Amino acid sequence: MSEAVSTLEGWYCLHDFRAIDWNAWKSLTDQERARAEDELYTLLRQYQNTEDQKQGSTAFYSIVGQKADFVFMHLRETLEELNELETAFNKTLFAQVTIPTYSYVSIVELGGYMAKPGSDPMQDPEILARLKPILPKAKHICFYPMNKRREGNDNWYMLSTEERRNFMRNHGMIGRNYAGKIKQIICGSIGLDDWEWGVTLFADDALQFKKIVYEMRFDETSARFGEFGEFYVGNLLDKDKMEAMLKL
Amino acid sequence: MSEAVSTLEGWYCLHDFRAIDWNAWKSLTDQERARAEDELYTLLRQYQNTEDQKQGSTAFYSIVGQKADFVFMHLRETLEELNELETAFNKTLFAQVTIPTYSYVSIVELGGYMAKPGSDPMQDPEILARLKPILPKAKHICFYPMNKRREGNDNWYMLSTEERRNFMRNHGMIGRNYAGKIKQIICGSIGLDDWEWGVTLFADDALQFKKIVYEMRFDETSARFGEFGEFYVGNLLDKDKMEAMLKL
Amino acid sequence: MSEAVSTLEGWYCLHDFRAIDWNAWKSLTDQERARAEDELYTLLRQYQNTEDQKQGSTAFYSIVGQKADFVFMHLRETLEELNELETAFNKTLFAQVTIPTYSYVSIVELGGYMAKPGSDPMQDPEILARLKPILPKAKHICFYPMNKRREGNDNWYMLSTEERRNFMRNHGMIGRNYAGKIKQIICGSIGLDDWEWGVTLFADDALQFKKIVYEMRFDETSARFGEFGEFYVGNLLDKDKMEAMLKL
Amino acid sequence: MSEAVSTLEGWYCLHDFRAIDWNAWKSLTDQERARAEDELYTLLRQYQNTEDQKQGSTAFYSIVGQKADFVFMHLRETLEELNELETAFNKTLFAQVTIPTYSYVSIVELGGYMAKPGSDPMQDPEILARLKPILPKAKHICFYPMNKRREGNDNWYMLSTEERRNFMRNHGMIGRNYAGKIKQIICGSIGLDDWEWGVTLFADDALQFKKIVYEMRFDETSARFGEFGEFYVGNLLDKDKMEAMLKL
Amino acid sequence: MSEAVSTLEGWYCLHDFRAIDWNAWKSLTDQERARAEDELYTLLRQYQNTEDQKQGSTAFYSIVGQKADFVFMHLRETLEELNELETAFNKTLFAQVTIPTYSYVSIVELGGYMAKPGSDPMQDPEILARLKPILPKAKHICFYPMNKRREGNDNWYMLSTEERRNFMRNHGMIGRNYAGKIKQIICGSIGLDDWEWGVTLFADDALQFKKIVYEMRFDETSARFGEFGEFYVGNLLDKDKMEAMLKL
Repeated sequence: MSEAVSTLEGWYCLHDFRAIDWNAWKSLTDQERARAEDELYTLLRQYQNTEDQKQGSTAFYSIVGQKADFVFMHLRETLEELNELETAFNKTLFAQVTIPTYSYVSIVELGGYMAKPGSDPMQDPEILARLKPILPKAKHICFYPMNKRREGNDNWYMLSTEERRNFMRNHGMIGRNYAGKIKQIICGSIGLDDWEWGVTLFADDALQFKKIVYEMRFDETSARFGEFGEFYVGNLLDKDKMEAMLKL
Repeated sequence: MSEAVSTLEGWYCLHDFRAIDWNAWKSLTDQERARAEDELYTLLRQYQNTEDQKQGSTAFYSIVGQKADFVFMHLRETLEELNELETAFNKTLFAQVTIPTYSYVSIVELGGYMAKPGSDPMQDPEILARLKPILPKAKHICFYPMNKRREGNDNWYMLSTEERRNFMRNHGMIGRNYAGKIKQIICGSIGLDDWEWGVTLFADDALQFKKIVYEMRFDETSARFGEFGEFYVGNLLDKDKMEAMLKL
Repeated sequence: MSEAVSTLEGWYCLHDFRAIDWNAWKSLTDQERARAEDELYTLLRQYQNTEDQKQGSTAFYSIVGQKADFVFMHLRETLEELNELETAFNKTLFAQVTIPTYSYVSIVELGGYMAKPGSDPMQDPEILARLKPILPKAKHICFYPMNKRREGNDNWYMLSTEERRNFMRNHGMIGRNYAGKIKQIICGSIGLDDWEWGVTLFADDALQFKKIVYEMRFDETSARFGEFGEFYVGNLLDKDKMEAMLKL
Repeated sequence: MSEAVSTLEGWYCLHDFRAIDWNAWKSLTDQERARAEDELYTLLRQYQNTEDQKQGSTAFYSIVGQKADFVFMHLRETLEELNELETAFNKTLFAQVTIPTYSYVSIVELGGYMAKPGSDPMQDPEILARLKPILPKAKHICFYPMNKRREGNDNWYMLSTEERRNFMRNHGMIGRNYAGKIKQIICGSIGLDDWEWGVTLFADDALQFKKIVYEMRFDETSARFGEFGEFYVGNLLDKDKMEAMLKL
Repeated sequence: MSEAVSTLEGWYCLHDFRAIDWNAWKSLTDQERARAEDELYTLLRQYQNTEDQKQGSTAFYSIVGQKADFVFMHLRETLEELNELETAFNKTLFAQVTIPTYSYVSIVELGGYMAKPGSDPMQDPEILARLKPILPKAKHICFYPMNKRREGNDNWYMLSTEERRNFMRNHGMIGRNYAGKIKQIICGSIGLDDWEWGVTLFADDALQFKKIVYEMRFDETSARFGEFGEFYVGNLLDKDKMEAMLKL
């Protein structure tokens, strides 16, 4: 909108939430269950390989409550790769005992970027690390989609660039207070999915999710303009925890 | 927001609503039904043990109407424990004849706490008893999630701290009239689930649920700012009542 | 709210809407179908006994359209009894060929009651007959839940007692024009279910449902403040009609 | 509302939308499929008989897209007859391979009728033909439910009779431009189903549906006060077309 | 609305989104899977033939995320042909392993057309190419339905023709900046489906979907008047890619 400020985009992102069909899981034979787990752990290793090669990153968390049992958050270079990840998962025996419950398509973004004349931000390692991040292994995840409101006098998109910038600056201040406690990945999804942004928070103390979102709600940016979708929270998973979860 | 006033948090909370798949229940053999009940009652005893050790608390109620057949309201120290409770339940034979219908993730909170200088509220037994409560065995339960409205002139989060405090004081007055009749557990869920709070009421006379919520609706806090989700009401369950319910 | 005016409550109410799973019904043997019907008619007789003993009342109607095939409207003294009715129904063979589609929990109420000093309304036979009514056997039923609106300038709960009383008086005038044509049971459901009231109308001429609701819509109480949920209409059922309906 | 103007009602109306469960259809034997079709065509003949005897009318159309595969629009004298049509259909073998997807209950109405003193409109053949119409065999159908809005300054039911009459007159003008292209059946459903009206349009050129609804949207009656539900469009069916559709 | 400006319509359009039931797919024998694929590829060839004969056009894309696995976007001369395409697909063995997830019915439109006196636009090859387009083989697709808002002061249909024309002109300017990057097909669906328009974008770089929709959101036409439904994005499919996707 304004000459020097722009939004940068990095890796595409797919949040893939799934429930376990426990009746189906139990109805498998021991051998089938072993094979299903093997296929799942093979996928986990492949995701790790991709991450090691800096071709993407994948987070794997359980979800608390009935909305889902676990989520894969995949970051990849292209929409085609995300599609291939889905298809590869769907072909596994393990997928047969899961039920898709929600998904979200977006792309990592960095808003309000001020380009330095003559420089290419995609050559800046700090920028790249934010656009193509290796997802943290924090103990907890929180995901929610959101919109900026467009209603009557509370229409974000009718504000001037100046007004929006001031609102976002104050908003960013709050975020900074949580540095070290919360790692935040902002993905844009206008034109890609049903909300305008998908926010993923990582923290070792889940209570920080409540504290930051609550504090921000009093900030005018959220108070007047924030519209929020469903919230998902969960706990870090790995092969060992998944084995424990699936053990009958 | 204001220097001395803060919100305190205690145990995490999971409301887990489930329906019974009566066709599946009837299709089990007598032996399977006996085993399914045994597994359920074993869990109930484990919940009681946890409560006896003050490591958490669990309420168990039936639900009236088709929204669910029963609910577990679990309070535990961590999100991981809530996840483990879900998984342990899902592995039982009894779980196979139930259908998840709704769940809610939150954390017990105490709002408007005025810290005394130099004191640690978490050392105050009265505060602790409210943040990590043993849930009552009242005859009836009522659960509903709610938001504070953010629309046009009715935007709770755009009010001054002073205004909000006055609104809440009047609101609290009404609640006090129901002391002895209703026990109320307020859980915050901003950043954890889809609404901002989850309210659980316990009473021996279910009519009090209607009376308190109706009276509060005329209070400006609810009239202008309260947004309410689904309401669930039910009756206290225990092993004996559950046995009667499940007996074919 | 105001000193002498109050709301009185009588029997708890459960509307239990169900569809028939015709494929399942047809897949039963003749013998099973006979047994399923027997169990259903036994329940109908029990409901009649309860009514004869003035311990409650049950209406039984078909529903037109795909929302349901039939509804039980149960009035009972306690929430526990409503729960027991559900469970008893769920255990029948007939229940196995039905699918729950909607339910509503409420309590019969009489609003705007003016207490005479020194009198107990629950000793007044006329009041009692309205709070614990025997449901009519009219040819048609109409059920819908509703709220009073709380939006901007159209906020019912921000009106003065005087304003609300005037609105309700005019509203009641229209109702009176339908005396003899429509029998109306108002149930309150604040704190019990998702809407604030559940309205059940009975009439021998279904067209009167349209006429009264249409006429009331122009009354300011409905025009500005009424919010309406789903409408269900149906026809009186009894053992003979149910037999005809179920006969293959 | 106003002395001489009134709304007249004719036949009750049930729109019954259903999808075909193709997997179930294919799983039938040739013989079963033949019998299922026979039962369906027998019903179609019965509907035709009813129409020949002027006891009702039934339209039968396919639906484009996944919302449904076909719709029956039944007009009958009573709600009981509509219930019986449903039940009779549900008992057929053909019904076993269909899935109910949406239905709508309403009654044919003629608004703004100006009674001539001393005359009975139900004796006027022209009026009767509009209240108890034989549905056309146009090539296409379009159905949608709608409300008149009641929000802030756009509250239809707070307008004066005069204002509403003017709005409707202009609205009617547009409709008249489509005479000969579109046949319109207006059904009222206040007190009968979830919206206030159900509109059914018939045309040989489906593009006229788009043109009339688009043109009307600029008319203040629709622009300010129209709220629209789901739209269903489809193509005329008869025994031959249905045979072609069902042939494997 | 205004004398010389009009909307032109071309081919009817059906977006048919489907998920693959992987469990069903895997449960087929190798032979059945081969036959199912053969039937699918036969349909793809038929669609290509129709396109070669300029009787219509069909796009075939995968969808990213759980909303669907693939979409057919069919353009045809009549609603009957769209119905026949659906039925033909439903009869295939391949259809048995798919689940319909969403569909949309509309018609290609060209708004704001200024007729030259004495000319027939349907004889103008350039106009015809826009109304009856051969769909591109771009690498990515984006589909979303939308409305023009009718709320309070933001009521598109209460604006003057002049105002709407100015808004649309500015809106079109933005679109022109994406010429060569994005190919856009606008379909009208007033009177045909639940939203007023269905927008389909094609691009070789999926990021352009985000960029154009984001940029337009700040344009007053979208900011004040745009209401958006669900967004679907995906990748180009052909026989080879589909074979790879389906290979177990």
